[in-house]
Amino acid sequence: MVFSAKTSGSDEWKAILSAISTLVEEATFEATAEGISFRGMDPSHVALIDISWPNSAFEKYECDGDIKFGVRIDEFSKLIKRADKTDSITISIVDTLLEIIIGKNKQYKMRLIESSATDTPLPKIPYDTKISLGSTLFDKILGDVQVVSDYLTIKTTQDKAEFSGKGDSGEVLISLQKQQDELSEISVKEESTGTYSLEYLNPIVKAVGTASGSIVCEYSSAKPLRIEFKVANMGRIHFYLAPRVES
Amino acid sequence: MVFSAKTSGSDEWKAILSAISTLVEEATFEATAEGISFRGMDPSHVALIDISWPNSAFEKYECDGDIKFGVRIDEFSKLIKRADKTDSITISIVDTLLEIIIGKNKQYKMRLIESSATDTPLPKIPYDTKISLGSTLFDKILGDVQVVSDYLTIKTTQDKAEFSGKGDSGEVLISLQKQQDELSEISVKEESTGTYSLEYLNPIVKAVGTASGSIVCEYSSAKPLRIEFKVANMGRIHFYLAPRVES
Amino acid sequence: MVFSAKTSGSDEWKAILSAISTLVEEATFEATAEGISFRGMDPSHVALIDISWPNSAFEKYECDGDIKFGVRIDEFSKLIKRADKTDSITISIVDTLLEIIIGKNKQYKMRLIESSATDTPLPKIPYDTKISLGSTLFDKILGDVQVVSDYLTIKTTQDKAEFSGKGDSGEVLISLQKQQDELSEISVKEESTGTYSLEYLNPIVKAVGTASGSIVCEYSSAKPLRIEFKVANMGRIHFYLAPRVES
Repeated sequence: MVFSAKTSGSDEWKAILSAISTLVEEATFEATAEGISFRGMDPSHVALIDISWPNSAFEKYECDGDIKFGVRIDEFSKLIKRADKTDSITISIVDTLLEIIIGKNKQYKMRLIESSATDTPLPKIPYDTKISLGSTLFDKILGDVQVVSDYLTIKTTQDKAEFSGKGDSGEVLISLQKQQDELSEISVKEESTGTYSLEYLNPIVKAVGTASGSIVCEYSSAKPLRIEFKVANMGRIHFYLAPRVES
Repeated sequence: MVFSAKTSGSDEWKAILSAISTLVEEATFEATAEGISFRGMDPSHVALIDISWPNSAFEKYECDGDIKFGVRIDEFSKLIKRADKTDSITISIVDTLLEIIIGKNKQYKMRLIESSATDTPLPKIPYDTKISLGSTLFDKILGDVQVVSDYLTIKTTQDKAEFSGKGDSGEVLISLQKQQDELSEISVKEESTGTYSLEYLNPIVKAVGTASGSIVCEYSSAKPLRIEFKVANMGRIHFYLAPRVES
Repeated sequence: MVFSAKTSGSDEWKAILSAISTLVEEATFEATAEGISFRGMDPSHVALIDISWPNSAFEKYECDGDIKFGVRIDEFSKLIKRADKTDSITISIVDTLLEIIIGKNKQYKMRLIESSATDTPLPKIPYDTKISLGSTLFDKILGDVQVVSDYLTIKTTQDKAEFSGKGDSGEVLISLQKQQDELSEISVKEESTGTYSLEYLNPIVKAVGTASGSIVCEYSSAKPLRIEFKVANMGRIHFYLAPRVES
């Protein structure tokens, strides 16, 4: 069985591991001839990450079977962080270890852990609303809301997206108009209002934000939110978040 | 009753809240037709801040009565920190909330707290000595002294200001001559020596320092020190500090 | 008895105090007509620092006897850190205090402590291997190894130096070839392998690294490692580290 995957830089791995680390401590990747993928939920099943990294996004990719390998995310992250931005990264499986070659003269071998091979189905929901905005702007909005609230409410109408929150000390309302530059896309089949936990949203946006120029948010009233992060030279990271259940 | 005050940037509010936060957790501002003011002492009555912010310093200012409003400084600061340097800030009272509009599309409403309306009289003292120096230089001197002492002693003669301190591990002496650039003014009616706590001096100078180009220190021997911070586009912040009582 | 030593900048003192602080809390310096020296071991006698700072490296140096003076390193460091890079530093002994004049108007006096005058002999060992490399590269290698191991193993052959480590989570191997730029010198009388604790290596390399362009490592199999840091405008700092004793 042959498996080897080489990227020309280290940003993709950094973004992926950073994203996954916001949800779980141990992760099982799956490598096939088509590429590498990961799917996992946080322990309380509120958020889900679905990563698809096609073979075409690698500088060099070989996989002649179907391999699952489990890693401790903190251990893997520490090694990948030793790479400079322009260091190539080659991973392969050697004996029962993950071999990670960084740049031209650094070679790590990392232990693998038993992979937890549960199949996590994706939520199948029709999305009434779709908005696109810069990841930096979205990160800023989350910060603006977090100073007064633990939850973000998104309300969309034909020409406007409103981000709001409310807490003990006060409330906040941020309005983005369709014509404004910051909101690159807004398409609304039906006016929608959804409320989502900043405890999950903030870390993932911070984790992937710098590697992703723009993000796409899709949701329907009182239904899960799906965020798509587009990372350059990579496939995509989908993040699903359950709506707040009013108690 | 109408009250609305708009600044073209956020630096003034940041400097003021940062200054007040070094003394108290809750603050009562007073707004009149003339402008906004604040006066308050720390719980042990060692230091006093007196802020006068005239209507002329605002981009737009309206107040047709005499309004007192109380806020929790940490809550107010967190909101103001969400503003960029060039974001305009408009505050007004809406129902029983403080409305804070930041830039063009961010609106906060913050709870008010019961205002503690004690009148704090200012110390009336003739000052024998007046020195002016850059706030960065003054901050550096405080740091130089703090590595050996908890107190700063200022001694001024006709042509020299000496800053000194003494502690268990050693002592320090920093001399500034009248002719030197760093000391932009020194005027001495009578040679004076005063000793003041760095526990109070350091935070206020760090808090307002960056927003204030230069500061004016006035004091007499064994009498309170008064520091005037001039903040661009604003009125002034006066900081009073009781002298050290030798035990 | 006259003793006064002036440097034109503060980097040398910062590097020396930073280096010593990784091993001991109290240090005894010795000043003679030839210059200033220090020698000391850490409490568990695993590492030794030997500093020789000749009179020629000072802007001005006077010493007409043999003086030992003891200081608390944290107290001395705090004062020296108040100097800018280009501030001159003059130290002398005044009464029973160390006078430290920084730049043109800052004067400290620091208490001295009883000097512990034990003679520490240097390990006399023939070194089979000598390699030179940039201190930044060496610091990076230590970081690369530390993510998986507490120890660094250095193995040298005629044309290659290998840095490796192994721990619970995995292992690492970094190879530097003789022809590569990063390895400015490698001379091997006999192939050598030594293992040394990163707990000691990391702090000293971080402490002196920025002040030292390149470092020279010398060792023999299972014998102490000696690192020479060359600090511009100063003499040299020798750091000795005992090899790991396999248990």
